[in-house]
Amino acid sequence: MKSLDFVANIRSVAIVGATKKNNYFFVRIFAESFRGKVYAIHPELKNIEGFPNLPVYGRVTDIPRNEPVDFVFISLPREKVVQIIDDCVEKHVKLVSIFTTNFADEGTEEGCRLQSELIEHAKNQVRIIGPNGMGLYYPRLGIRWRSSLPIEIGSTGIVAQSGGFSNLLIHGLTSENVKVSKAFSIGNAADINALDVLNYFKDDPETNLIIAYIEGLPEGQGHELLRIMKDCKKPLLMIKGGRSKSGSRAAMTHTASLVGNYTIWKDAVHQGCGILLRSFDDILNIAKYIKMIGPQPIHNLALISLSGGYGVVCTDMLADYGIQLPLIEGTLSDTLSHLFTIPGTSFKNPLDIAVMLYEIEKLDQAIRAILSDSRFDGLLFEIAPLYIAYPMRPGVKLDDLLFGLLKKIRETFKKPIGVIIEDIGFPEIKNALKTRLQAIDIPVFNDIEPFARSIHAVNEFVKNPRT
Amino acid sequence: MKSLDFVANIRSVAIVGATKKNNYFFVRIFAESFRGKVYAIHPELKNIEGFPNLPVYGRVTDIPRNEPVDFVFISLPREKVVQIIDDCVEKHVKLVSIFTTNFADEGTEEGCRLQSELIEHAKNQVRIIGPNGMGLYYPRLGIRWRSSLPIEIGSTGIVAQSGGFSNLLIHGLTSENVKVSKAFSIGNAADINALDVLNYFKDDPETNLIIAYIEGLPEGQGHELLRIMKDCKKPLLMIKGGRSKSGSRAAMTHTASLVGNYTIWKDAVHQGCGILLRSFDDILNIAKYIKMIGPQPIHNLALISLSGGYGVVCTDMLADYGIQLPLIEGTLSDTLSHLFTIPGTSFKNPLDIAVMLYEIEKLDQAIRAILSDSRFDGLLFEIAPLYIAYPMRPGVKLDDLLFGLLKKIRETFKKPIGVIIEDIGFPEIKNALKTRLQAIDIPVFNDIEPFARSIHAVNEFVKNPRT
Repeated sequence: MKSLDFVANIRSVAIVGATKKNNYFFVRIFAESFRGKVYAIHPELKNIEGFPNLPVYGRVTDIPRNEPVDFVFISLPREKVVQIIDDCVEKHVKLVSIFTTNFADEGTEEGCRLQSELIEHAKNQVRIIGPNGMGLYYPRLGIRWRSSLPIEIGSTGIVAQSGGFSNLLIHGLTSENVKVSKAFSIGNAADINALDVLNYFKDDPETNLIIAYIEGLPEGQGHELLRIMKDCKKPLLMIKGGRSKSGSRAAMTHTASLVGNYTIWKDAVHQGCGILLRSFDDILNIAKYIKMIGPQPIHNLALISLSGGYGVVCTDMLADYGIQLPLIEGTLSDTLSHLFTIPGTSFKNPLDIAVMLYEIEKLDQAIRAILSDSRFDGLLFEIAPLYIAYPMRPGVKLDDLLFGLLKKIRETFKKPIGVIIEDIGFPEIKNALKTRLQAIDIPVFNDIEPFARSIHAVNEFVKNPRT
Repeated sequence: MKSLDFVANIRSVAIVGATKKNNYFFVRIFAESFRGKVYAIHPELKNIEGFPNLPVYGRVTDIPRNEPVDFVFISLPREKVVQIIDDCVEKHVKLVSIFTTNFADEGTEEGCRLQSELIEHAKNQVRIIGPNGMGLYYPRLGIRWRSSLPIEIGSTGIVAQSGGFSNLLIHGLTSENVKVSKAFSIGNAADINALDVLNYFKDDPETNLIIAYIEGLPEGQGHELLRIMKDCKKPLLMIKGGRSKSGSRAAMTHTASLVGNYTIWKDAVHQGCGILLRSFDDILNIAKYIKMIGPQPIHNLALISLSGGYGVVCTDMLADYGIQLPLIEGTLSDTLSHLFTIPGTSFKNPLDIAVMLYEIEKLDQAIRAILSDSRFDGLLFEIAPLYIAYPMRPGVKLDDLLFGLLKKIRETFKKPIGVIIEDIGFPEIKNALKTRLQAIDIPVFNDIEPFARSIHAVNEFVKNPRT
């Protein structure tokens, strides 16, 4: 398994397949974003409209000898690709990304043959991402396959056998303030496969959380997967595509992947550093939890809600996922009884604060008393956005008050805080408060189940001996 | 069980407990919204600041004999409430709503005694909502307990043993275009309990979908629940609060409810018209599904996605919930092969349309061919909002095109259509398209699991013989 370390040192890129018809789509993207030298390769054009200073060569090998090319991005009809690979070998290119589809994914002998040819011609000298993949997203170097992809630099690594799913993950995670270090959209994974990338991420200093969407692996690589997973010290969230019969058929159509036996996957992931998930939203929620709270278990929680009924529903759901709400009693109960004096409030846990919401100082004291008690591993705070939109005391800026309160608590206590803001029709208010809270590592969830599931996943992960 | 039919004819309301300190909170709300006569009751005040024409009387019984009062809303310290009940009996008031807390919910003998007194003094002549409840929300009559509650009139009835949860449901459902006929926030349910309201809703011509959040019922009412559930022809979505040990303790603190055995509840609900759920979001999603699609089962689905990988993940999740994606073959396959000509697309089901997204006419033909085939009960269409935000073909208004396409399809075919728009950071674009689609009864979900769960819940509901 050859290392992918060289990707951190990509300094020059050549784009093959620029056409006037597609408005020089990929040339434009690289020219606008990449923090290194960009070349366009075209058999006829002398320069690219709108980019007068961008050098254009007929072939990769026409680029002057003293100008090395690290990375070549290919978007050409499939039958023309192999010739480019030959040129890349000659030019000592390190990495090629093949966007072109209809290789093995076409499901034909011809497609499979052409894909094998790529590998033969690469002669173990050029590494290939794809074909049928979007390639590499690497915001630190300004490498991206769409100019709409975010430029924020983070520490979450993504490997996905799907370009569309990569897009969803990059946008979705970044919008939740879980920014990305790099993403590999590996498509048919003819050369660089998920194991190569996982093996790279596990030692990559720029990556500390790994997200993987995998449909299949090359035959006989189960042991290798297990070895990497056991060796990896970073949490890895994985969706295995093709768990079901119809899903496995869909994966075959999609990337010509043999999906393998899901039970074997489950064992490998669970024996290693992995958390196996089933949905996109689970990835977003659990990645956010791990990024903001850390892989820290929670068994006993204090729950503050603005609605007694919602508090009961949360209590039941948390119990379903093995998380308890210890009864508040003894001296803590005495302390809280002096603070919870408004009729309609209660502090047994769940704590129903009702209009005590407006008495931030008392709330602050109550939360400090609770989190100082070793019986509580953390706090969940439910904020229905309608009370921010329509404060019962006019002029009170509840969002500022609550943000200030939670910020101070977060700075004082190491214990995790989670917040629920329901989707009930105040999107601007919700998103504004959510963004502020997530910027100080307080994750915000839409409802109790995603939060309970996140805790549960992390509790299981931490329990795992990873022998 | 006395009927609640009279609520549809509430023509006059008296508010007891207006104070200058609370800025005449409830008087203000009723004066602004209620489409009938409003009185304020106050022992000293002669008129209410800001409402010079609103009649104020010292007691309910001081209101002239020829001016009947149908509904009295009480927000007074608990020890003063029973006297008002006496007056309401004398005045032949039909319905009283007691907002005041610290009756049985306080968990003291005194609180319980005071609550019993209310019932005795009502003499079976005045019906009581509460105490410890928000009362009645009835947008057609302009009755609401907060002026922020929506004025839109719908056909979903809510009964909840929690004011906060009622608020969440009313705002949440309305924002999803599932508007409300009326809501009863019954609190401690000393008189009017969940069964009374369910019994009323089952025959209420203004209500065709019922949502219930219930913590407990009066002892020995299990059979009555079962009778109503079996007799009810309208779908009922229910959360039972206090399923877990800690949840049952929380329910006792919240509304003094004895939660009973959850297994008995499950049996009663499943034998009847009910769908038992565990989370707020499940209620929103399934209510939306039933409202827009109807309680119509789906066993075989066609899935169109913009991302092959996301399509695979959806296929697996649907299989988890017993929903199949039949392989497209035979003549339908022939038809589609002439439409899916762009490399990177596929039409085996899931259908991966990739950039065919821009060829709306072909997409239209493809969907018509699929939905005309009896092997497909419905269509799921995934629209990642980033492609609307950043169309690959500049100037193309994909949201308009897709909305127009789905609208035409929805008008032609009776078959259900669901849409997924993921939460990946384009909230305005998402919400705008979601609102348009939901206005034409195409429900929009955030991810595959809520959609799969909704179908599953409805499939189970429809399968249920309700003997």
